[in-house]
Amino acid sequence: MNIKEIKNDHFLKQLNNKEMNELAKDIRCFLVDNISKTGGHLSSNLGDVELILMLHKIFDFDNDKILFDVGHQAYTHKILTGRANQFDTLRQIDGLSGFLSSSESKYDIFESGHSSTSISTAMGMATARDANNENYQIICVIGDASIANGIAFEALNNLLENNHKIIIILNDNNMSINRSVGAMNKSLGKIRTSKVYSNFKDWFLKVFKNHPKFVDFVVRFMHRLALIIRSDNLFDNFEISYLGAIDGHNVKKLEKALKKAKDYKSSILVHVRTKKGYGYKFSENDVVGKYHGVSKFNKDSGEIINTLKNDETTFTNEVANYMYEKLKNDKNSYLISSAMVYNTSLTKCFNDFKNQCVDVGISEEHAVCFANGLALNNKYPFVSFYSTFMQRGYDEIVHDVCRINSNMTFLVDRAGIVGEDGKTHQGVFDVSFLYPLENSIIACPTNPSNLKGILKCFETIKGPKFVRYQKMVCKKNDDICDVSFAKFIIELFDVKNPVSIIVVGHSLEIIKEMIIKNNLPFNLINPIFLKPLDCETLNMIINTKIYVYDNTSVFDGFTSAIMDYYSRYNKIIKHYCLPNKYIKHGKYQDVLKYLKLDEETVLNDIISDYGKE
Amino acid sequence: MNIKEIKNDHFLKQLNNKEMNELAKDIRCFLVDNISKTGGHLSSNLGDVELILMLHKIFDFDNDKILFDVGHQAYTHKILTGRANQFDTLRQIDGLSGFLSSSESKYDIFESGHSSTSISTAMGMATARDANNENYQIICVIGDASIANGIAFEALNNLLENNHKIIIILNDNNMSINRSVGAMNKSLGKIRTSKVYSNFKDWFLKVFKNHPKFVDFVVRFMHRLALIIRSDNLFDNFEISYLGAIDGHNVKKLEKALKKAKDYKSSILVHVRTKKGYGYKFSENDVVGKYHGVSKFNKDSGEIINTLKNDETTFTNEVANYMYEKLKNDKNSYLISSAMVYNTSLTKCFNDFKNQCVDVGISEEHAVCFANGLALNNKYPFVSFYSTFMQRGYDEIVHDVCRINSNMTFLVDRAGIVGEDGKTHQGVFDVSFLYPLENSIIACPTNPSNLKGILKCFETIKGPKFVRYQKMVCKKNDDICDVSFAKFIIELFDVKNPVSIIVVGHSLEIIKEMIIKNNLPFNLINPIFLKPLDCETLNMIINTKIYVYDNTSVFDGFTSAIMDYYSRYNKIIKHYCLPNKYIKHGKYQDVLKYLKLDEETVLNDIISDYGKE
Repeated sequence: MNIKEIKNDHFLKQLNNKEMNELAKDIRCFLVDNISKTGGHLSSNLGDVELILMLHKIFDFDNDKILFDVGHQAYTHKILTGRANQFDTLRQIDGLSGFLSSSESKYDIFESGHSSTSISTAMGMATARDANNENYQIICVIGDASIANGIAFEALNNLLENNHKIIIILNDNNMSINRSVGAMNKSLGKIRTSKVYSNFKDWFLKVFKNHPKFVDFVVRFMHRLALIIRSDNLFDNFEISYLGAIDGHNVKKLEKALKKAKDYKSSILVHVRTKKGYGYKFSENDVVGKYHGVSKFNKDSGEIINTLKNDETTFTNEVANYMYEKLKNDKNSYLISSAMVYNTSLTKCFNDFKNQCVDVGISEEHAVCFANGLALNNKYPFVSFYSTFMQRGYDEIVHDVCRINSNMTFLVDRAGIVGEDGKTHQGVFDVSFLYPLENSIIACPTNPSNLKGILKCFETIKGPKFVRYQKMVCKKNDDICDVSFAKFIIELFDVKNPVSIIVVGHSLEIIKEMIIKNNLPFNLINPIFLKPLDCETLNMIINTKIYVYDNTSVFDGFTSAIMDYYSRYNKIIKHYCLPNKYIKHGKYQDVLKYLKLDEETVLNDIISDYGKE
Repeated sequence: MNIKEIKNDHFLKQLNNKEMNELAKDIRCFLVDNISKTGGHLSSNLGDVELILMLHKIFDFDNDKILFDVGHQAYTHKILTGRANQFDTLRQIDGLSGFLSSSESKYDIFESGHSSTSISTAMGMATARDANNENYQIICVIGDASIANGIAFEALNNLLENNHKIIIILNDNNMSINRSVGAMNKSLGKIRTSKVYSNFKDWFLKVFKNHPKFVDFVVRFMHRLALIIRSDNLFDNFEISYLGAIDGHNVKKLEKALKKAKDYKSSILVHVRTKKGYGYKFSENDVVGKYHGVSKFNKDSGEIINTLKNDETTFTNEVANYMYEKLKNDKNSYLISSAMVYNTSLTKCFNDFKNQCVDVGISEEHAVCFANGLALNNKYPFVSFYSTFMQRGYDEIVHDVCRINSNMTFLVDRAGIVGEDGKTHQGVFDVSFLYPLENSIIACPTNPSNLKGILKCFETIKGPKFVRYQKMVCKKNDDICDVSFAKFIIELFDVKNPVSIIVVGHSLEIIKEMIIKNNLPFNLINPIFLKPLDCETLNMIINTKIYVYDNTSVFDGFTSAIMDYYSRYNKIIKHYCLPNKYIKHGKYQDVLKYLKLDEETVLNDIISDYGKE
């Protein structure tokens, strides 16, 4: 079938199982073909093709509502709602979003934020539906890693009191982005094998069928005794009706289960087992998560096209190298990740230093407090987060870390504009929410040498330290910059220069080249420590015209602090910061240009501005 | 026994059960006597006297470490660590903290932030202990409401993989601050009654003791079948060893259980049932939580001394009155609380409009997403939070509410300085973390008439709206101020005035009186909408000297936005904001004076400053 021609899901109703399987195969080919060219989320989307097909067959999404938790696993849903022909624009500026988007389709009724929010949201929607006496189904699709996050637990805990029907589809691939962890996952593992006991029960009832009283006695007794014996189904404790485990690649079984769930009178959880990366051998065999979110790849060889040249590196890789040496040489150091081991290049650390590395799963709040516990007992924890996911641990950073001046380092990856993942993944708020916190120390490198210098300098400072770095390809550099605590780096300076520019992050490198090339009379300051401020350097340039250029953060935090500082000396500054907006997806440079915050635009603006007065 | 003379817990080792019970009684008298004079947390501290006594008897806190979740239930711990003689200074400035405080005592090894963080922290500490080959116990004491919060679930889920022994004492009073909710609580309820099944099992084994093969068969069968039958112990699913339920007022049973837990080789949860408010009839019979955190009261009559005069009210009460009418007249409206129903005066709303009111328990993240689900289905949710607890829902406010411009109102109580609860409860960050979010609308009243005007105005605006109000006694006022969206209120203005002061919150009322009384040439602006800014009014006063006075928030957010706005016109402003510090406890006015941010100090500073240039 030509996937691009799919306009809606109506044709599914007529397909038999064989045709459904063929369609699933075609969709997988389409996905592999397209994602190999554009990059995108591959494995999760290959895993749930049959599931989404059957959901679209059994339910009617002109009335029923579907919520995808996280939302990067819904490509088949996009195809079935008429967006297949836009897949060549996936994750590009003004192109198809990699997530759900209500501006793209009326069938995207829920734009997920971070993980694990779908059950809570569905419960609110169901409460409203029933208050209006409306009649439709509300279904949320959530993965086995996401359901173990705190908010999902809170929702399950509250579900008993909220008797408004929802259907929870637990898409269990036993993997998460890397691999699932925790008791919940182990519990799911046992359910997966519980069929043997179910058969055993059937056998028992058959054997003793002529002794109904005995059976009755034993069953009642067992039922009661079971109350004090271990059970294996966590959902029982939440008193949630449970259906499963269903083979998520068997359309017949899926159909039966989904119909049953549809007819069920109260909330029900359908446990569907899928294989992440299904149908494409390279992603099927991937155990570390390299095909989770993938850049372009060769679909025949499975080889991911490495865009890094030999003389290039990334901040992420440099942090991983530092951590490897650190864990090796300092047995007092620990590394905590929250289900992002592969994506932050920390797999080697986790493999080689198992005793010092802890992946807590998608549990950012727990990660922060667990690390704080280590610090309280004089260990040195490093917590690795994406900037945007750190938001989940905000309250704990406020009260459990900064308030008590806990000694640890946060490795804040994906700070600033992250490009293709878009609105929910931009790392643009961290400085604004960390800055007002007493004791917080914040640094941001412009290049790998800077980064290494920061990490070295951090070793000499006590307190909660945050190094935030961009998703960025940089020139390799073996140097370690000499970084002093709370000192800016003066990149260019001449006492006669009438202008000073303070540039945060990697754009400084480009601005520096442009200033030198054009022989501009500009001082250039690298505020490698965003907090605390280096007042001495600020005083040194106080008689020049001052511009702050930060395309990694909103105004509040660092830039506002600079403005506040100078205001005490009756001095005005100008600034170029990210707007207080949720910033759309697209290639990094495309997004900066769209925001008029690329280096060329900003420098030209400064050039045309500074002589004006 | 004279409680004030207790210097440490060593004497406990010699006491027999009878003497322990007498001591518990004396401590209760001491607590009721003292708290009736100072105010403080009463019920939780009466509930766990025997538990804390026995913990101090069985363990050795010169080596072992104890973590109190939340920390307001540890008064007996304070007494046993030599602080009884300071109880007359409880919660006053430079006096005894109502929570644990490492600056008060080396036995306060963990200063809890918000609820539910103790298990994660203990796990981190235990990991460090075992890495060091140290040998001591780590115990955390957590309530039945706190253990149902997301982060506690995350910790329990991770406990299986973290095989470093901790002891979790579940202090189950089936009440929380108001009452416990959710499936976890129901599950605990069943455990409470499970003794009958345990007896049943013993009986069965006895009856069939001469048929060992049959017994063996049945037991094995049941054990397996139990795997697919409902269990009642949630902790089993987390594979956590469980001991209980123990009567928390029976010192003998407590001793036995705690000794068993101490000797246990791996992590264990001890489920202790206590009665909140135990031993003081008024608090024992309290079902709504009025003696949870209590102001001064008459210990003989139980009467809480109402400090409100007839012509006085609070913002909290005014919001409750508004909500009552709203829920009554608009069946589309919903009210969500996160275990704070009583403390936000919403009990009557919850009693009278059960279908529109949802208390989700201590689940702030779930509360935000649940409300968003209601909003997605065109209901109108009001979410009631303390400012400081809203931090737990920060990520969901960012991505699930503001990003999609969800239409709802957040009722943000306890904004600004809250007084006696101190560092962890100050509501000083909300403006700073909400301001950078696209679509957020923020208002702050100076008096009840303002507040009612804001709520009325909000009814006409779409989007996520936050009204933040202080813990404050105000003059009653039946008026409803005429509030327009994004318009400041010009309180005092004369075109000849050389100075303008923009004052946030209730201090404006006092500043206004002082300006009038002293006939000062000052314009006075009430920025009732902190966001969006009223640029027209800002332009109107642009030629005067401008001061911003906000003792409810840190600089970032509103004040920085004003400064940024004027900087575009080359205009400098001065400001008086809260420092980027965790602010200590004490009476509201004492704290302001300590910060030099009381009205008199600030106005005098402005008077002495404005003529300088």
